[in-house]
Amino acid sequence: MKAVQTPRRDGPTAGAASRPGTAQPGEAGPTERPGAAAPARAGDTPATAFDGRGRRIHLQEVGPRDGLQAEERFVDTEDKIALVDALSAAGLAKIEVSSFVSATAIPQLRDAEAVLRRIRRRPGVVYSALVPNPRGAERALESRADELNLVMSASASHNLANLRMTQTQSLAALAQTAALARAAGVAVNVSLSCSFGCPMEGEVPAHAVLDWCGRCLAETGASGLTLCDTTGMAYPTQVARLTRAFLGRFAGTELTLHFHNTRGMGLANVLAGIEAGADRFDASVGGLGGCPYAPGATGNVCTEEIAHALQWMGWDTGVDLGLLLQASRRLPALVGHDVPSQLLKAGDRLALHPLPADFEHLQARALARG
Amino acid sequence: MKAVQTPRRDGPTAGAASRPGTAQPGEAGPTERPGAAAPARAGDTPATAFDGRGRRIHLQEVGPRDGLQAEERFVDTEDKIALVDALSAAGLAKIEVSSFVSATAIPQLRDAEAVLRRIRRRPGVVYSALVPNPRGAERALESRADELNLVMSASASHNLANLRMTQTQSLAALAQTAALARAAGVAVNVSLSCSFGCPMEGEVPAHAVLDWCGRCLAETGASGLTLCDTTGMAYPTQVARLTRAFLGRFAGTELTLHFHNTRGMGLANVLAGIEAGADRFDASVGGLGGCPYAPGATGNVCTEEIAHALQWMGWDTGVDLGLLLQASRRLPALVGHDVPSQLLKAGDRLALHPLPADFEHLQARALARG
Repeated sequence: MKAVQTPRRDGPTAGAASRPGTAQPGEAGPTERPGAAAPARAGDTPATAFDGRGRRIHLQEVGPRDGLQAEERFVDTEDKIALVDALSAAGLAKIEVSSFVSATAIPQLRDAEAVLRRIRRRPGVVYSALVPNPRGAERALESRADELNLVMSASASHNLANLRMTQTQSLAALAQTAALARAAGVAVNVSLSCSFGCPMEGEVPAHAVLDWCGRCLAETGASGLTLCDTTGMAYPTQVARLTRAFLGRFAGTELTLHFHNTRGMGLANVLAGIEAGADRFDASVGGLGGCPYAPGATGNVCTEEIAHALQWMGWDTGVDLGLLLQASRRLPALVGHDVPSQLLKAGDRLALHPLPADFEHLQARALARG
Repeated sequence: MKAVQTPRRDGPTAGAASRPGTAQPGEAGPTERPGAAAPARAGDTPATAFDGRGRRIHLQEVGPRDGLQAEERFVDTEDKIALVDALSAAGLAKIEVSSFVSATAIPQLRDAEAVLRRIRRRPGVVYSALVPNPRGAERALESRADELNLVMSASASHNLANLRMTQTQSLAALAQTAALARAAGVAVNVSLSCSFGCPMEGEVPAHAVLDWCGRCLAETGASGLTLCDTTGMAYPTQVARLTRAFLGRFAGTELTLHFHNTRGMGLANVLAGIEAGADRFDASVGGLGGCPYAPGATGNVCTEEIAHALQWMGWDTGVDLGLLLQASRRLPALVGHDVPSQLLKAGDRLALHPLPADFEHLQARALARG
């Protein structure tokens, strides 16, 4: 084995031309360079999640909704619009723009109509909105949302605590809400909270999760379903198994995985999902987010950290990392505090630091010693 | 495919008896239960890093050295001793106890002798010490270190900036230092900094890293080598390739991987290393650590987060998570600030939260609606 060649074969190199984040949306980035997506050659190790080979992963941005709703401060409507526009410019495949809940329940998102109405619609980007009930669906449809995201929980306790309904009542409400979307020809996605565990009940058995998936899909006619790790309880082995089981049972349904980084397993869970066949992941710019029922729970997985990691691993996320980091850099001023993103502090792995000021002196002294 | 059964087959369940962290060291923990390490059955998916099946991973604690040397505050000698003893009681396989550098260079570790002399030596635990030169080796050997950890850098610039020597000079110093250890019958490990990139130079080509590995091993007769991701530049694809190349070229050398979580890729890098055949990883309790040449760089990967994730994934780390979290919980008082560990805030994934106070009222109202 000529070991030396292995690590260099088709990894990104130090040259700027092959650095993730330098490509503009639509331009050939490092993960789209010729040959990167070619089938494995004889003698190659099999493709794993650690080796993207130019294949496509869809990153879906939930910061403007899941992130901002967890903030104490109301972010100005103009700033929300600028954030969504910056995110679409950065190449995110789908953006959850806001939530059509009552202004009393979540005052942070009371400007959902204004935001949906005034964002710059970029062709190819899906602008989604969370709706809790038929009234929310009417508002979202009037505001020209591309997709309605409906939500219920795989945990009976969490469903009651969060939605104030039994799961059966939620399912009926979802069906009514989805009917309005279907009548308007608008796509429906169902988000199933606590799919990897409930912070009050503990484990939620996989068969129960899959049964709720089946009932939600049957009652709503949804084209997509999101398995949500609402409070960061998912772990990679579980993610791989549930993903495989879901894809085996609901072929043709667009599956999204939604993780929080509460226990530091966010990226590992994404990779386990990829290995099991998932290709759509929610993430939040800056790592914004939280959950009122799980104190200490941190935000969603951080969009720029997931994009940076996946792109270096050879996956095509479609994201311009430089533009995404620009958007993230403005967040602390908007929300009034630091954001969890570590990439925002450290920069791309090849963002270099200057030599120490006394470097030439050190070098001269060392060389003088022979 | 009967999808429902797949996720439940041999994952940990909600019962306390099968929860990681509840087993005492030496007792049968959840990852050691009968059958967990049995070979894959026909029809099983192949074993991956996401599926430990009871196999052993060695976690090596570097917090008392790599963590505490980055702190402004001097941690009292008694507190250091108590920390090391708590870590050995928690089941860590190896502990880097201190560094025998000059008290002027790193005053935080000026009590290396006292700490090494007064820790409670637990059978089976390797107590390692970092030594920069022959004088440090003499002090470490007098203090009965089980292993001397020698260090140089794969990057010429980083070697000069950090060690004030050329790489050739460092290699000669390493050989001299190792000779003292060999004469005393004490094991030698070499840590190669910047094996996954240099914060000043950028990429360090894998062939250069492997060549330095070869020269270090030949000159020192070391039994182990650590590939260090000094400033968090490693990414999983690179980790898997370099690990495979190293194991192919230096069979018989004990390989350790040392990652920092600077860009949120720590656990993913550990998993990529495992997939490629590595089974020893450095980590730091609480996620303590940093690097003066890379502002914004966060600490080492966090021992309790890595142990928690790996144990839920079915790997046998030998660590008692409850005892480890107890040790971590004392750190903020020792170092005077919060530590990066997210697991310390959130607890085990099955550390549950109480139902909301108005839960019964919510439930009664929902049920009354029919």
